[in-house]
Amino acid sequence: MFIAMNRFQVVKGREAEFEEVWKSRDSHLDQVEGFIEFHLLRGPEADDYTLFCSHSVWASKQAFEAWTRSEQFRKAHANAGQTSDMYLGPPQFEAFQVV
Amino acid sequence: MFIAMNRFQVVKGREAEFEEVWKSRDSHLDQVEGFIEFHLLRGPEADDYTLFCSHSVWASKQAFEAWTRSEQFRKAHANAGQTSDMYLGPPQFEAFQVV
Repeated sequence: MFIAMNRFQVVKGREAEFEEVWKSRDSHLDQVEGFIEFHLLRGPEADDYTLFCSHSVWASKQAFEAWTRSEQFRKAHANAGQTSDMYLGPPQFEAFQVV
Repeated sequence: MFIAMNRFQVVKGREAEFEEVWKSRDSHLDQVEGFIEFHLLRGPEADDYTLFCSHSVWASKQAFEAWTRSEQFRKAHANAGQTSDMYLGPPQFEAFQVV
């Protein structure tokens, strides 16, 4: 099993807006082979941002990587740049293999 | 749903030993109310360490916090100090609420 997380430093006061963007997203992930589940996570608050993580669980690293090369992935990320003023810096990607 | 993660910077070369400590641990988590699942995650490698995360999923923040005040928690962490030379610095705790 494989977990892919993207860490977002969301500017204070923009949290509700950020959550709304994710809720209204149509990722078509449920049609992707090897996809298990997705959650948006709200984490600790720092002085100037709130940490959020996208958290997706996959059957394998291979399944995740195949998705990143797919048309569904391209579509799901087509508008990502439009919300960049909600963040302090770019998202930080971390991938984890279940031991 | 609530996810608690502890981030461990494991010294290069000690990864197998670290995994063994976790595998042989008897946490009794499955007896704890509100506990859903636990995984040990192996993450990205930096120059001088490999990132590991303990990753536990709970029905609620309240369930997790009740566990941290329990006898099971105390027992599960009784020997934590003995392995501290495997790490660069103390573990970093992060808690996440599923949105």
